[in-house]
Amino acid sequence: MRHVTSLLLLVLQAPAFPVQTGYAQGGAGQDTLLGFDAAGTAAQRALETDFDSRISTADLDNWLRILSREPHHVGSEAGRQVVDFVARRFREWGYNVEIAEYEVLFPSPRTRELELVAPEYFRASLTEDSLVEDPSTSRIDNLLPPYNAFSIDGEVEGELVFVNYGTPADYEILDRYGISVTGKIAISRYGGSWRGIKPKLAAEKGAVGTIIYSDPADDGYGAGDTYPDGPFKNESAVQRGSVMDMPTYPGDVLTPFVGATAEAPRLPREEAPTITEIPVLPISYRDALPLLQAMGGEVVPAEWRGGLPITYHLGPGPARVRMKLEFNWDMVTAYDVIARLEGAVYPEQWVIRGNHHDGWNHGAADPLSGLVALMGEAKAVAELAAAGSPPARTIVYTAWDSEEQGLIGSTEWVEEHLAELDEKAVAYINTDGNSRGFVNIGGSHVLEKLANQVMNDVTDPQTGVSVAERRRARIEVNGNAEARSELKSRADLRISPLGSGSDYTPFLQHLGVASLNIAFGGEGNDGSYHTLYDTYEHYTRFRDPGMVYGVALAQTAGRATLRLANAPRVPFEFTGLADNIASYVDEIEALAASMREETRQTNARIDSGVYALALDPTHSFGAPLKKAEVPFFNFAPLKNALVELQKAAGAYAEIDQSSAASEGQNILLYTSERELTRPDGLPGRPWFTHQIYAPGFYTGYGVKTLPGVREAIEERQFGIAESEIQTAAGVLRGMAERIRELSE
Amino acid sequence: MRHVTSLLLLVLQAPAFPVQTGYAQGGAGQDTLLGFDAAGTAAQRALETDFDSRISTADLDNWLRILSREPHHVGSEAGRQVVDFVARRFREWGYNVEIAEYEVLFPSPRTRELELVAPEYFRASLTEDSLVEDPSTSRIDNLLPPYNAFSIDGEVEGELVFVNYGTPADYEILDRYGISVTGKIAISRYGGSWRGIKPKLAAEKGAVGTIIYSDPADDGYGAGDTYPDGPFKNESAVQRGSVMDMPTYPGDVLTPFVGATAEAPRLPREEAPTITEIPVLPISYRDALPLLQAMGGEVVPAEWRGGLPITYHLGPGPARVRMKLEFNWDMVTAYDVIARLEGAVYPEQWVIRGNHHDGWNHGAADPLSGLVALMGEAKAVAELAAAGSPPARTIVYTAWDSEEQGLIGSTEWVEEHLAELDEKAVAYINTDGNSRGFVNIGGSHVLEKLANQVMNDVTDPQTGVSVAERRRARIEVNGNAEARSELKSRADLRISPLGSGSDYTPFLQHLGVASLNIAFGGEGNDGSYHTLYDTYEHYTRFRDPGMVYGVALAQTAGRATLRLANAPRVPFEFTGLADNIASYVDEIEALAASMREETRQTNARIDSGVYALALDPTHSFGAPLKKAEVPFFNFAPLKNALVELQKAAGAYAEIDQSSAASEGQNILLYTSERELTRPDGLPGRPWFTHQIYAPGFYTGYGVKTLPGVREAIEERQFGIAESEIQTAAGVLRGMAERIRELSE
Repeated sequence: MRHVTSLLLLVLQAPAFPVQTGYAQGGAGQDTLLGFDAAGTAAQRALETDFDSRISTADLDNWLRILSREPHHVGSEAGRQVVDFVARRFREWGYNVEIAEYEVLFPSPRTRELELVAPEYFRASLTEDSLVEDPSTSRIDNLLPPYNAFSIDGEVEGELVFVNYGTPADYEILDRYGISVTGKIAISRYGGSWRGIKPKLAAEKGAVGTIIYSDPADDGYGAGDTYPDGPFKNESAVQRGSVMDMPTYPGDVLTPFVGATAEAPRLPREEAPTITEIPVLPISYRDALPLLQAMGGEVVPAEWRGGLPITYHLGPGPARVRMKLEFNWDMVTAYDVIARLEGAVYPEQWVIRGNHHDGWNHGAADPLSGLVALMGEAKAVAELAAAGSPPARTIVYTAWDSEEQGLIGSTEWVEEHLAELDEKAVAYINTDGNSRGFVNIGGSHVLEKLANQVMNDVTDPQTGVSVAERRRARIEVNGNAEARSELKSRADLRISPLGSGSDYTPFLQHLGVASLNIAFGGEGNDGSYHTLYDTYEHYTRFRDPGMVYGVALAQTAGRATLRLANAPRVPFEFTGLADNIASYVDEIEALAASMREETRQTNARIDSGVYALALDPTHSFGAPLKKAEVPFFNFAPLKNALVELQKAAGAYAEIDQSSAASEGQNILLYTSERELTRPDGLPGRPWFTHQIYAPGFYTGYGVKTLPGVREAIEERQFGIAESEIQTAAGVLRGMAERIRELSE
Repeated sequence: MRHVTSLLLLVLQAPAFPVQTGYAQGGAGQDTLLGFDAAGTAAQRALETDFDSRISTADLDNWLRILSREPHHVGSEAGRQVVDFVARRFREWGYNVEIAEYEVLFPSPRTRELELVAPEYFRASLTEDSLVEDPSTSRIDNLLPPYNAFSIDGEVEGELVFVNYGTPADYEILDRYGISVTGKIAISRYGGSWRGIKPKLAAEKGAVGTIIYSDPADDGYGAGDTYPDGPFKNESAVQRGSVMDMPTYPGDVLTPFVGATAEAPRLPREEAPTITEIPVLPISYRDALPLLQAMGGEVVPAEWRGGLPITYHLGPGPARVRMKLEFNWDMVTAYDVIARLEGAVYPEQWVIRGNHHDGWNHGAADPLSGLVALMGEAKAVAELAAAGSPPARTIVYTAWDSEEQGLIGSTEWVEEHLAELDEKAVAYINTDGNSRGFVNIGGSHVLEKLANQVMNDVTDPQTGVSVAERRRARIEVNGNAEARSELKSRADLRISPLGSGSDYTPFLQHLGVASLNIAFGGEGNDGSYHTLYDTYEHYTRFRDPGMVYGVALAQTAGRATLRLANAPRVPFEFTGLADNIASYVDEIEALAASMREETRQTNARIDSGVYALALDPTHSFGAPLKKAEVPFFNFAPLKNALVELQKAAGAYAEIDQSSAASEGQNILLYTSERELTRPDGLPGRPWFTHQIYAPGFYTGYGVKTLPGVREAIEERQFGIAESEIQTAAGVLRGMAERIRELSE
């Protein structure tokens, strides 16, 4: 579901204060694997060589072609066929397969109307063009037309206001122009935040409706050649997508906290808090052009300009639109494929490996490019088991349904099996869309060392060096000075903290299962994202010709899975965790300091009246509003707890990591991530229990680390910042205590 | 001729190392004027109040309307009428007027053809649209159509290569793509450098022709509403302009160093080094669209994208164009109006105040908005003289011809009268186009204190505070942290060093006459620049409604002129000069250090082969070329000389500045700027004698301070950097010696 490019950018920005971790940077295949001794390392590496040889581009290509033949969203016949195909393969390979079924609310469009009613008339087509160059784009009998799932029904009419990306910062700019969206329809471009934030904020600001379009500067001819000439959005392409308020809770909107089984208690739809407050509709830039062209008012600030051949104006009006949206609020069945291969040594310890199977459309890139890699892994793992090398722990391969509507299949399964997973889940390894380029691993920092050892051992198909080395080269050439310097000062590449946007969220952020999300990207462009053009033809031409990065993904995620499954000592590591958390603490202190200084200076400038002299009196752009001064916060509890964590992590690192751990120790190891959660969850969103990683309440997918503290400060809720510091400190102390227990 | 917005940007960037100058920031009208005692200050201020009252918006508006009625370029009948009108007014007001005449080479278009010949056919219109909303745009019988003056004749055909702004940095990027312009036609957008740099560099790189167009992102609908809805370039508008190689020498191309009188010796045209090597033509974005749309090859880097609704490609080809340009290489007469008002005390000391009168077209903004302010000043000064307050020194009002083709009228006059000016010229105060907004003063730093006292005494017509205070507010709100901090640590606003682009260049950079260039701007947008749309209608609607900033300009330039004319001690000051030069020395040291480190790092990266791993192997963008390492330079001579200058300046500042100076001292004072020149000039361009300020050889208008040293390093001619440091140090020592002489 998520754009991989954004992940890449995150990782290229190094946190503020790198430290020496003491690990040597291993050459591929040379170091001892975390959790294994020397002999175990040799055996595991031999197994992985065998594993690699069993993954074929031909398999991946074949499965991709078959599975992407038709649009296959949740509740569709084609979706059911995908489930059957995948389940059949798993069964053939020897897995114990069950299909978990959930009854979930699924809105699909019944009425979509968008008209410009003044100053001239225009009716939006809301339709994507089929292309002779891509036969898949004519197989659209079951295609969901462009819409935003979990928009509320409604018919609204109002003047347009251009809100840029519709982020909090954008509304601050509109405030300075004296422009309110109250009673208006906000027109926003995609980008800058997760799409669901746009109607959420617009509604908070009083708008009656929201239109979201893909601006060609961001995602069209401005980015590069358009489909079918190139990979980017042509003038008719529309990004579909859910606008469910996932930062509150993901999954079925009617059954928060519980699996959406047939008999589960359900909220009345009117009370579901994650459905939008106002109607919202995505459109193409072809449909957006007449709307934006008809707008008046002030010219937008330079940074807000898009790529259409017009002068962009803020409004309000004179462009006035009417929008009517009605949805079929059907209950449909979501099918998760759950395929188990029992562990030979620790059958009650589960390593879970997942990817969703549902698509908004043909879904070649999203999600099938990741799913076929997972299938390649599963086939090879089963063959290894049949040849006498079963995993030590149970491996659970999962193919989730209805991810696109809000991580529904995975969330419902985790919610239903919460207690069992709490006990048994060692880790969760997620993939989703994939493409050419550089490896991106995000996840729990207890797995950072494991992730690095994996990246060192997988070969990049284009250059022949390890995928770690290629990533290092990328940072060396494109990174900032700090990131470059960290390449020398820090043995491991940082993995990025996870926000949201794919199925790791219920595992990591609801239950506290250490998770990784793995993808390659950065060279295969994704203008097809959630459009009609996410087809086999587009994917194999532009995103991963020859499926070689599909194989690299299988080798990467497969190694992570196999090492977690086989290591005599669960391969978690804590100095990397402490180091990353230290950087987050530093960031937040710096954030508070810079907000304090910025607020002080800006308030002083407002008081001095200097804006009235500096700004053009013939335009409406005025001074910002004064803001409450930022107090000093007591970060000491957090920093003291961090010291405890660092000491404990250091002590555990002194233990011989190649010694096998007892079953009890292994359970203490893999359940340690649960220590980072808190039953009450985050302020205002109890479903999100993890205290280190969460999707931002006003960014949507973008991660907020130490979210309780960080968001209290960012959102200027200074009153709760101190208690959130205490809470976060408590979680760190709990983790330190757990690690000390492991070192005893 | 020059865009005022670029000046503004320069000033908002504070130099690196602000120092305390010891001057208190004067409230308007409260401090003693430099060069006057208390009684003299009071008398001068009273005179200025009287002066202000004699300048009327009605006069300015009336003259602007009359003078902008027809296109009035050099050699045209309308141009001759402008000269007559201006000269008549000066005579009426009591000036001793002469018309200086020069016979100069003036190319005007005979043939202009531009066709796309492959892959499809298109013929460029090369014509601007007349608009019913602006009657001036239909008075075009004598309009010069869009062309670049001093393009060579030629007919060429070749594939297009997109070179972005056509700067040296842009060609380095093309090199990384493996793209050469040799034998091709370079298509460049306006901006990023002075236009004349584009054909100069393209020719150096082997191109056979150059096309320059105004991209709508920079100067069209992307910047704001287009004419006649708003001020910016509509799809037909073309920026004309000279491409003479002015960084080599400005003025008549056939008579470098000598006034182009009828009998002057002349170069054969074929030997004139300042005519371009290859044909060059400016076009509109309407004409550019089919050319750019037909291009193939790699997609341009993100920063190179313009605002047309297409994907921009680098080429070469398949777009292929044929271009044919032929010019009438006529000899025409340029007429400078020279109007003198004899000084009552020091008639042989001249304060010169100038603005050009020729336009590319109707020329309402450029140059008439500045010329009518000058006329308003001249009328008021004459009235004051008639009422018994003649200036102490002679004031020479000048209206230059043929500035647009290359500062021709002013350059020829300075060259003709070099010896007399060397002796008599106290200072030169220039204006050119003007518009609403903030005061911008650039110039010799011996005049920085004078400029600040003037800015403190002129009231901004929109806000009622002094124009200095409004400028400070602008820096406080929009400046960077350093510029903001300097507002508190430094009493005076910095004036920006001058590059080129208007008639101060021969005075300042050829002869070493201390000069100022004054304009308001930043709120009146200049999409009309050098187009058919630079009309009275456009100007009075968008650039200075009510002509109130015309009056403010007259008050500002008039004060500077009158204070220079009347001060018993020539109001030069040296600590500001030393302070600014210190910042340039620091900048150049930092430049060398950062180039050295950047070169070292990049070369190391090239050697390590990391680019091959970091860059997408399916694209042609490769590693940069290795560059020679940057050696360490001996800056000691320059820094020792700077200390001498600082000490001497400090000692002079100790003298009672309100004491009248002797005639000899005053001559030593005002000729001190000549100490900053050197008869041999700069390396490779002997016409430019000033060693502190010069237009950049590869930026055109953009200033290079300490140009000998800076350009040697920037252009990696490390072999001459040391000798240029010695040269610059010698000039600073000479200036220090002169100042010491003044303090004796």
